[in-house]
Amino acid sequence: MSKIIAINAGSSSLKFQLFDMPSEKVVTKGLVERIGLDQSVFTIVANGEKIKEMTDLPDHSVAVKLLLSKLTKLHIIESLNEIDGIGHRVVHGGEKFTDSVILTESVIQEIEELAELAPLHNPANVVGIRAFNEVLPNVPAVAVFDTAFHQSMPEKSFLYSLPYEYYEKFGIRKYGFHGTSHKYVSGRAAELLGRPIEQLRLISCHLGNGASIAAIEGGKSIDTSMGFTPLAGVAMGTRSGNIDPALIPFIMEKTGKTADEVLQILNNKSGILGVSGFSSDLRDIEKSASEGNERAELALEVFAGRIHKYIGSYAARMSGVDAIIFTAGIGENSDVIRAKVMNGLEFMGIYWDPTLNQVRGEEAFISYPHSPVKVMVIPTNEEVMIARDVSRLADL
Amino acid sequence: MSKIIAINAGSSSLKFQLFDMPSEKVVTKGLVERIGLDQSVFTIVANGEKIKEMTDLPDHSVAVKLLLSKLTKLHIIESLNEIDGIGHRVVHGGEKFTDSVILTESVIQEIEELAELAPLHNPANVVGIRAFNEVLPNVPAVAVFDTAFHQSMPEKSFLYSLPYEYYEKFGIRKYGFHGTSHKYVSGRAAELLGRPIEQLRLISCHLGNGASIAAIEGGKSIDTSMGFTPLAGVAMGTRSGNIDPALIPFIMEKTGKTADEVLQILNNKSGILGVSGFSSDLRDIEKSASEGNERAELALEVFAGRIHKYIGSYAARMSGVDAIIFTAGIGENSDVIRAKVMNGLEFMGIYWDPTLNQVRGEEAFISYPHSPVKVMVIPTNEEVMIARDVSRLADL
Repeated sequence: MSKIIAINAGSSSLKFQLFDMPSEKVVTKGLVERIGLDQSVFTIVANGEKIKEMTDLPDHSVAVKLLLSKLTKLHIIESLNEIDGIGHRVVHGGEKFTDSVILTESVIQEIEELAELAPLHNPANVVGIRAFNEVLPNVPAVAVFDTAFHQSMPEKSFLYSLPYEYYEKFGIRKYGFHGTSHKYVSGRAAELLGRPIEQLRLISCHLGNGASIAAIEGGKSIDTSMGFTPLAGVAMGTRSGNIDPALIPFIMEKTGKTADEVLQILNNKSGILGVSGFSSDLRDIEKSASEGNERAELALEVFAGRIHKYIGSYAARMSGVDAIIFTAGIGENSDVIRAKVMNGLEFMGIYWDPTLNQVRGEEAFISYPHSPVKVMVIPTNEEVMIARDVSRLADL
Repeated sequence: MSKIIAINAGSSSLKFQLFDMPSEKVVTKGLVERIGLDQSVFTIVANGEKIKEMTDLPDHSVAVKLLLSKLTKLHIIESLNEIDGIGHRVVHGGEKFTDSVILTESVIQEIEELAELAPLHNPANVVGIRAFNEVLPNVPAVAVFDTAFHQSMPEKSFLYSLPYEYYEKFGIRKYGFHGTSHKYVSGRAAELLGRPIEQLRLISCHLGNGASIAAIEGGKSIDTSMGFTPLAGVAMGTRSGNIDPALIPFIMEKTGKTADEVLQILNNKSGILGVSGFSSDLRDIEKSASEGNERAELALEVFAGRIHKYIGSYAARMSGVDAIIFTAGIGENSDVIRAKVMNGLEFMGIYWDPTLNQVRGEEAFISYPHSPVKVMVIPTNEEVMIARDVSRLADL
């Protein structure tokens, strides 16, 4: 029996979840927001009750100290000695990290060096790592990378058709993200199907505010829709996904913006927000579309249409598919999007049941029993994957 | 009976083909190269013989005069009065032109205004149009647009998930190209299949130095891989096709290049040339790959792999597919690429015959007779489509 805490640190936030292992029972979880800004917010679930507190937290180190002191004050644990391991989500592991890894000073430095590939995320992840290391220097800590699961992609999948030296000199290639989620749901799918994952061809659709699709053959990612950055692939809440690359210079010329400013627009003002013109939140869009708003309906069609085409593409990539998985906020909850994505895929053996498709946020098959290709909703759980990797690598 | 000349004018070149209509017999054809440069080259096929001549042609107008004088001097025609119609290929017709159109001064001006969308091509096309208009002012002339066939795409296919005002203000959308070729081969496929095109779902792969894939449902293009420009979609001889858009600012920062310079690299130094490192010509690559060059093999895999995935994607787009068409230089001649593209698509009903696949440059079925989805090689013929449209619109 051990207690492991899973951490996801952003630039001004820190999510945590404390597990009892190997039972995988969630002891507590919570969130610190607005770190380094005025009026930070600390939220924790203790004994089934949500406690929310406003305070000022100038940096992650203070936030971590507050969090740890709360764990004992609220009698969730009696002493910090009970924490046996810490797992940190890290966005970018580059080509260096093909699996999770025990954190050492040299690993932390390598994660910092990879900040070039993830300038918004890796530095924030390192701040979280260092904050815990300061308070709990003797507790083993593990980094779990969003990119690691996709490192099994063959070169023909990850290479861009750019001058080859860009790959050699600058590391320009497809990395892919949401790897921890794709790995979790594909493993869970194999369990639910009662078949060894080595024999399965799965297409996993992680559809949240960020969205990515992965082709998973024999338990290994062999292709994915996100690319060098999380901007690529399907349309998302505010991200464009793939566009004609020639549009960047064209938009620069038309608007007088710099390349970086155009990139900001592709990341923050495009996708569902850009097409609908009023919201990046799919729930707003579905409501508005059902009331007859044509631009909202168009946003749904564009969003679902791209995913629908990726499913065809990845089925071709694997010479067929055994199951399709929907996960993350939209994937777990939106029957509307799932229906639009699955419609018209009977030619490849996908027969889905509109009644079963009404499921929200729980594990379920939504294909007919006779459907040769199964379709499943599987809520993702990146935190438990982090805890498992800490157990495995720190031998807890 | 009438004679119609089909013209394809580039910035320093002019291709021509003279047809007897309605027989569609090619009376002569040829090419003027290096117009405006020293040592222009004029090539014409007359009475089955190829005649090549070096001369200085300072501009397109002089080139057109030379061409027309050759037609009479070589007794291909006895008088210029025999030319009943002229058809000009024009690359970009924007949203304005959904079909070919009789050229008037106001149409020419509209084509010039669309130069913003095709800065390399439309101005050259207009130079060719004006040169013929100067010499043969009373002969009806027709513009045939590369984009027109794709204007049937629905908004969910052509819209990028960018801020919607970019579409409204700047015309930013997917236009698609090679439309005349996709239209020709899809029509021919229906004839060879002996079925009304209205009932068919076709995927047309135009694979030349430029390459694009089209989903054609009921004879109408409903999606295509090229986009706002011909850079988008699959990898090509020297073009990257789709990449993570975030790579443009990243490459700018890494190399100190401007956005336009990076765009040049994506257009001229990427694709098969970029991956292989030594050639954009697929014949060189196939030879080198067969001799064991790994980077050449990788270039083949990347090139074919993207097309393979588009076929899955467009089959999904149309809820299935009745036939796949290969056309243009590579599509008509490379059994190696066709094999790599078709391998592993049995799950969607594609069974192809390696012996039949050895065909080069002629119409053939390369699927087994029992294959539910037919696979065909159909040499393209954009020139005859141009001549047909001149006949139709000028009522010849």
